[in-house]
Amino acid sequence: VSDIVFLNGAFVARDRALVPVDDRGFLFGDGVYEVVRLVAGRYVDGDRHRDRLARSLAELRLEGGIEDGTALLDIGLDLLARNRIGVGGQALVYLQVTRGVARRRHAFPPAGTPPTVFVAASGFVPQRDLMETGVAAVTHPDLRWHRCDIKSVNLLPNVLANQKATEQGAYEAILVRDGVVTEGTRSNVFAVVDGVLRTHPTGPAILPGVTRAVVVELAREAGLHVEERAFSAAELAKAAEVFATGTTTDVTPVVAVDGRAVGSGQPGPVARRLGALLTARMTSLPD
Amino acid sequence: VSDIVFLNGAFVARDRALVPVDDRGFLFGDGVYEVVRLVAGRYVDGDRHRDRLARSLAELRLEGGIEDGTALLDIGLDLLARNRIGVGGQALVYLQVTRGVARRRHAFPPAGTPPTVFVAASGFVPQRDLMETGVAAVTHPDLRWHRCDIKSVNLLPNVLANQKATEQGAYEAILVRDGVVTEGTRSNVFAVVDGVLRTHPTGPAILPGVTRAVVVELAREAGLHVEERAFSAAELAKAAEVFATGTTTDVTPVVAVDGRAVGSGQPGPVARRLGALLTARMTSLPD
Repeated sequence: VSDIVFLNGAFVARDRALVPVDDRGFLFGDGVYEVVRLVAGRYVDGDRHRDRLARSLAELRLEGGIEDGTALLDIGLDLLARNRIGVGGQALVYLQVTRGVARRRHAFPPAGTPPTVFVAASGFVPQRDLMETGVAAVTHPDLRWHRCDIKSVNLLPNVLANQKATEQGAYEAILVRDGVVTEGTRSNVFAVVDGVLRTHPTGPAILPGVTRAVVVELAREAGLHVEERAFSAAELAKAAEVFATGTTTDVTPVVAVDGRAVGSGQPGPVARRLGALLTARMTSLPD
Repeated sequence: VSDIVFLNGAFVARDRALVPVDDRGFLFGDGVYEVVRLVAGRYVDGDRHRDRLARSLAELRLEGGIEDGTALLDIGLDLLARNRIGVGGQALVYLQVTRGVARRRHAFPPAGTPPTVFVAASGFVPQRDLMETGVAAVTHPDLRWHRCDIKSVNLLPNVLANQKATEQGAYEAILVRDGVVTEGTRSNVFAVVDGVLRTHPTGPAILPGVTRAVVVELAREAGLHVEERAFSAAELAKAAEVFATGTTTDVTPVVAVDGRAVGSGQPGPVARRLGALLTARMTSLPD
């Protein structure tokens, strides 16, 4: 049986959730999205995801009809109930908003064209095995556009790099632009270099990951030396630890890059500690 | 009444041409497209568009089920007949292929997942008035990814820059990367600098425009000094002539850039001559 999703005001079976070919999401990738995690029926950092969605929409000037991201999150909760996704487990809510349906031309459609709004929910099981054993990654040129801070559905470069990683048995492709590590195709990337935990600063070159920000906060609270300062591909290659963070990735240690072991080839103490702190935080967030 | 389009093997009314929300075109912009012109019922450079589509598909490794671009062009001809678009006028055929419908994940879906194939046709009237009077353009940072040679539907940066141009009353945004003019949001750009007709060379930074290539050929045949050599934003500002080329743009003179007149502020002799040669070629192509 197909699950129920939300599309433009209606709850419909997923296999009947259809958009016109003239949707600007389909024709131009003219839209944005979020993926939000739920633990015990509650959003994890729902406010941060809502704020980031609002920012993405504002950057695209995609404003009409999306008054309040909170409403979209509420729809996600509704979908959990409709799909009988129990609060005992974890879940994900996927939100996507595009610039609606209009005759194809590059410039925006007429004012008042309603955006397309799509929300889906699914059960989620964290990949604890990967967090325990660590994963392999490969490096790949960062060919993306120069506004990676906008969480848009223009994801073709991410798709192509992620596919390359998958074919090499790797979990993630670590993207390198002008010799500098930016992030992964669907995660942010941290490295411990000379005893300092580093990750690329926010700005147009990376997505401001919600989990990235939380991990930076947790690391500081734990007294670790953290710098939001980019590291090079050369520094990546000699890092004592590397790990990826994300809404579904949590803190996943990277134990091999391009076939070479990172440090001991086992998950390191910084990744383990931050992973444990993140999990603890996720299960104890206040209402 | 809605026109008839082709979607995944069926001819359907456009307002009933729907794709699942799980189409990778909608979720990732994971697809490519072409726009092909017809004059007197015949494709203009159909072979070049077909070859470029094949190349785009190959670069995306989107191969299953699209055996022959010629078949897609034949569908376009069929659509002209079904929509009673007379051969007396001109027409456009739009082709789009995406990586099909699958549960959302970045890496490619399972082998054998059928691509989504969409073809539409419409009557077309060239904007002769703009070619006569010339148009205004604005410059805009080229924020796109680094494989602009692939004609993908990841068009968000093009959309945002084109909208900026539209709001300033301009026809096109001329994109500038690292001080160098690459192309327009939906056209290639030429300039006459110190008596030399120049345009950005092919490569990852621009779309290899079919009309661009034809105009280069026509200019050479006409004995003009042509160089496929990039020009800077500074050279653009002092150019004697600037013009845009494209499948629907033909040769459209740009008579103002960022509010300053180009040359005399009127269409120049090179643009006029090449425009006339292009039109003559288009109406006299052999079968």
